[in-house]
Amino acid sequence: MIQIGVIGYGYWGPIVARNFATAEGTVLTAVSDKNPAALERACRAHPGILATSDPMEVIRSPRVDAVAVITPVWTHYEFAKAALENGKHVFVEKPFTATSSQAQELIDLALARNLQIMVDHTFLFTGAVRKIRQLIDEGVLGKLFYYDSVRVNLGLFQHDVNVIWDLAPHDLAIMDYLIEARAEAVGATGQCHLNNLEDLAYLTVYFPGMLAHINVNWLSPVKVRTTLIGGEKKMALWNDLEPDEKVRIYDKGVEITSGQGVYDLLVSYRSGDMWAPKVDSAEALKVEAGYFRDCVENNRTPINDGLAGLRVVRMLEAAGQSLKQRGGAVAL
Amino acid sequence: MIQIGVIGYGYWGPIVARNFATAEGTVLTAVSDKNPAALERACRAHPGILATSDPMEVIRSPRVDAVAVITPVWTHYEFAKAALENGKHVFVEKPFTATSSQAQELIDLALARNLQIMVDHTFLFTGAVRKIRQLIDEGVLGKLFYYDSVRVNLGLFQHDVNVIWDLAPHDLAIMDYLIEARAEAVGATGQCHLNNLEDLAYLTVYFPGMLAHINVNWLSPVKVRTTLIGGEKKMALWNDLEPDEKVRIYDKGVEITSGQGVYDLLVSYRSGDMWAPKVDSAEALKVEAGYFRDCVENNRTPINDGLAGLRVVRMLEAAGQSLKQRGGAVAL
Amino acid sequence: MIQIGVIGYGYWGPIVARNFATAEGTVLTAVSDKNPAALERACRAHPGILATSDPMEVIRSPRVDAVAVITPVWTHYEFAKAALENGKHVFVEKPFTATSSQAQELIDLALARNLQIMVDHTFLFTGAVRKIRQLIDEGVLGKLFYYDSVRVNLGLFQHDVNVIWDLAPHDLAIMDYLIEARAEAVGATGQCHLNNLEDLAYLTVYFPGMLAHINVNWLSPVKVRTTLIGGEKKMALWNDLEPDEKVRIYDKGVEITSGQGVYDLLVSYRSGDMWAPKVDSAEALKVEAGYFRDCVENNRTPINDGLAGLRVVRMLEAAGQSLKQRGGAVAL
Amino acid sequence: MIQIGVIGYGYWGPIVARNFATAEGTVLTAVSDKNPAALERACRAHPGILATSDPMEVIRSPRVDAVAVITPVWTHYEFAKAALENGKHVFVEKPFTATSSQAQELIDLALARNLQIMVDHTFLFTGAVRKIRQLIDEGVLGKLFYYDSVRVNLGLFQHDVNVIWDLAPHDLAIMDYLIEARAEAVGATGQCHLNNLEDLAYLTVYFPGMLAHINVNWLSPVKVRTTLIGGEKKMALWNDLEPDEKVRIYDKGVEITSGQGVYDLLVSYRSGDMWAPKVDSAEALKVEAGYFRDCVENNRTPINDGLAGLRVVRMLEAAGQSLKQRGGAVAL
Repeated sequence: MIQIGVIGYGYWGPIVARNFATAEGTVLTAVSDKNPAALERACRAHPGILATSDPMEVIRSPRVDAVAVITPVWTHYEFAKAALENGKHVFVEKPFTATSSQAQELIDLALARNLQIMVDHTFLFTGAVRKIRQLIDEGVLGKLFYYDSVRVNLGLFQHDVNVIWDLAPHDLAIMDYLIEARAEAVGATGQCHLNNLEDLAYLTVYFPGMLAHINVNWLSPVKVRTTLIGGEKKMALWNDLEPDEKVRIYDKGVEITSGQGVYDLLVSYRSGDMWAPKVDSAEALKVEAGYFRDCVENNRTPINDGLAGLRVVRMLEAAGQSLKQRGGAVAL
Repeated sequence: MIQIGVIGYGYWGPIVARNFATAEGTVLTAVSDKNPAALERACRAHPGILATSDPMEVIRSPRVDAVAVITPVWTHYEFAKAALENGKHVFVEKPFTATSSQAQELIDLALARNLQIMVDHTFLFTGAVRKIRQLIDEGVLGKLFYYDSVRVNLGLFQHDVNVIWDLAPHDLAIMDYLIEARAEAVGATGQCHLNNLEDLAYLTVYFPGMLAHINVNWLSPVKVRTTLIGGEKKMALWNDLEPDEKVRIYDKGVEITSGQGVYDLLVSYRSGDMWAPKVDSAEALKVEAGYFRDCVENNRTPINDGLAGLRVVRMLEAAGQSLKQRGGAVAL
Repeated sequence: MIQIGVIGYGYWGPIVARNFATAEGTVLTAVSDKNPAALERACRAHPGILATSDPMEVIRSPRVDAVAVITPVWTHYEFAKAALENGKHVFVEKPFTATSSQAQELIDLALARNLQIMVDHTFLFTGAVRKIRQLIDEGVLGKLFYYDSVRVNLGLFQHDVNVIWDLAPHDLAIMDYLIEARAEAVGATGQCHLNNLEDLAYLTVYFPGMLAHINVNWLSPVKVRTTLIGGEKKMALWNDLEPDEKVRIYDKGVEITSGQGVYDLLVSYRSGDMWAPKVDSAEALKVEAGYFRDCVENNRTPINDGLAGLRVVRMLEAAGQSLKQRGGAVAL
Repeated sequence: MIQIGVIGYGYWGPIVARNFATAEGTVLTAVSDKNPAALERACRAHPGILATSDPMEVIRSPRVDAVAVITPVWTHYEFAKAALENGKHVFVEKPFTATSSQAQELIDLALARNLQIMVDHTFLFTGAVRKIRQLIDEGVLGKLFYYDSVRVNLGLFQHDVNVIWDLAPHDLAIMDYLIEARAEAVGATGQCHLNNLEDLAYLTVYFPGMLAHINVNWLSPVKVRTTLIGGEKKMALWNDLEPDEKVRIYDKGVEITSGQGVYDLLVSYRSGDMWAPKVDSAEALKVEAGYFRDCVENNRTPINDGLAGLRVVRMLEAAGQSLKQRGGAVAL
């Protein structure tokens, strides 16, 4: 039984706490938040836990084996470092850290202490992403051509990070998981309208022989959560807002046979069945909590380990640089 | 009665011909195409016209007042120049020319001869674009924040141009018409998968204080024709595939009032009615044909004149340059 | 402060209890259920309440001013009657009672004791239904032509009632509220496939000069919650599954001007704007709980009183009769 | 080569003529219409045909092997009878005739003369209906539970027939084709709003162990063409307005295992993949024209023969009777 202490009980913290409290093999033992009202809510939902305004109490508690850091990104490093130094495994909200050097330092520290880091790339544990990964692994999609995600809605709840740091980590983590190759460069353009943080942005991530593109926007009148994944054999459309058929696989494609002259290219289109495989509807964070327990107990490196977190932070940093130079690609 | 000769009777030529043949005040008098089967179709559809494999016969015909050039883009300059030199007005398929210097030369020539050039930016004459323009002019949307278009489908019918030159001129012409300011720079990224022409690409067009973004793709399993236009007061969603409500206006927005500290920003969301104004469903090319007649007869400069065509070609050229340098903005 | 006791803590009971516990002016004081696990859940969610397996303890408790009966329909009469006899107001889950004579008896009893009955026709308190009622009252739709509802999904959770008694009360209560005239007759057809309870059915409700039709089905692969309301001036489409624009108003219509012969009818179509008014998104049951308090405190007759409940039960009874005779209309 | 003469060149006639003119093995030789403008259009589209205002000229012409009767329904009998008496095969627009006795008389006449009757139940030749029939034949759907069609839009082009005779023949012909059993009875309710013809109606068709239901409406603000077909093994949703995936097959279902008491029923739900098979997009009427030629040349009885037409007319007659008695089932 892994004992979990949660630091930060604002919007996402209570959800993380509930999942660790109810997942098999984990138990919630401590919560810290500087806001007394938040602590009161935590106690009511989870009677018997240690509730404190001091994060170090959680980090030092002998009743805590692992610390979940669910605080603003610029505090991740400090809390995760203290936790690791106190011999605790850590579970960190995305994005992992505010800088890649912080991420590297935490990774080194965990390695030295033989502790696990898991970065909360929640989407990797949704039925949809797991199904798409399975279809890629089984060769159903064939060689990947592109990854094109739109993640827009009306919403501006972040005061300390721009829309890239708020929304793009989801897509960066998913594509890092789905695409076998490693990203080579990142380009980004964006704009601020309401304050000095970008509220809409476009990212291009360059992979060998393939492009990924992410459209994030806090100023859209409609909510869209759609990802197109083009493969040589088949193409996938993931619409996360669909209640039932979230993933659709299209047996569509184009083939070109070269002829002699420029006008002799023979183009043949294929348009066959569409198929929406059943997708597991279990709560992603519940699955992730069980996986965290498994990785800690069996000393396994998670797919969403510190290195995965670091890769995402590096892409965010590169996007920030590119933003300043109007979109030119920044090598990773 | 303006007499029209059409050069090029492939895919788009017959549609242009039919509209000039049936619009009020214009008459189709001549068609040329190097393909005998195409000429035969033209004669069957329009008995009594001059049908010839030699474009110069059309251009020189005394029965022709204006020449519609509906041929591959690399031939536009040659045919349009000959037409202007023979004292004919010209109507040229988009994109206007293969280079901006060609465009400039044609503009100068037309000016010297007091002839009209109209570039076939058909979408400007759809009910949807005219309605959006009206809403912008009346101040309904307020200051524009962004223009975000997705134009993707499964299709690769072009052998001589990439997806940017094929699909993006639509969006570039529309945004050039809708946005009062002039574009300052263009960035583009893209990739080739099936031959050496880009089959998917992303363009960013930089306007003063506003971004436009265009997603064009020949390898998408689903057809999408959606444009989001964010304004300070209201936001518009134009879905050209909707049979009925093509344009939706959302009374949604965000306002920020600065407080004292970084966490004191007061964000207020507004979410009111949605409204889909009735949009004129007349065939765009028919409206455009009538407008061409009007401009020629009354010596008026069309909104889609050679300069509009030139601006689009310049953006295409800049996109091509940016593509080679992985997305860095290229000033116009 | 109205003290509420809830009988029945299965699926809907906890939701009713939560809303009475949190609405202004009401307080949850007692819950009864024969299932010990349900009682335990109730105590955990609402510490300090009276929790008992005996409904009569709730009904007789001096800490209870009003009893919410959230039990299977065949037990409504018994519990509601006991509550009224003990001087308590009652809030009864839909459908009101198993027979119209039971309903009439409860109405008479409440009248004699000067107590309120409210039947939980929850949908009347949704933003969508309130908005539609407002549009009807203001004459926006004009004279009503028809009401056409589809309420289908995959689901068969009822063991004691057929799909009509399970799903149609929603529509019957809504149309009873929206349509000023009273229903004259009901026809119904349906069929059983899996056991001896109808799992799909079609109801026609005859109003003076207007038809209402309800399609209910437990065996549909897709979930549909759509109601079309045709009016002489405008038409409404209510799609309850839309996250944002639940109600759409179409400025569409047909007018006929009679000419001389049968072929001289002049038909004119009108097709104008579509408009989706903002709809209040407050939880319906929370609104209803506040309204219950108001009716009890101020001795007002609710819109969803016993008579409204009785009218729905009469329509259900007539539908049952019609079902046996293959759809012939049964007068009310 | 079968020579076809078409009587009636209004809305549907030109489409029928074009398909017979271009299908393999048939040739259009004659057209009659009382409207001179219609005849002129016919001559322009099909130079060289016999064009006449007198239908009997077509019927008697030695250049005509088969007569297509595309006129108002109350004239079908007269023209088809004359054609058969003159030794011509007939192709008759739906519905076959105005009465079942007319239909029977034509069937008998054709039998006596060894001539073919084909009723233009066009939808049987769409890719969607053929695919659904194939899935039923192969047992994919299992035993059929229900057939539920919605065919509504804003439209009132008929002056001589009500919405049932206008729209329902499509569904009646399709279900007659898809469902192996024969209908036993029909119930119908409906209402007139603008003149004395029903503009909305609901039909129930009773099959042994299964119900079919049809919702037809000329006064709907939105166009809907959706049919749900529930089977024991799988369920189908046919949305004819979808450009691509018209037919969706859901691996969904319910099973009930009886226990001991009423509450012991064990309900198990199955919810698996969804699958949209590729559907042939050939023009239905073109396929039907080729099939007509085949039936005539090889003396085969078409699936849409006079008997199929008669069954539809009988259901329409029964619906009309039921309408007068407010929905009670009328045996066939």
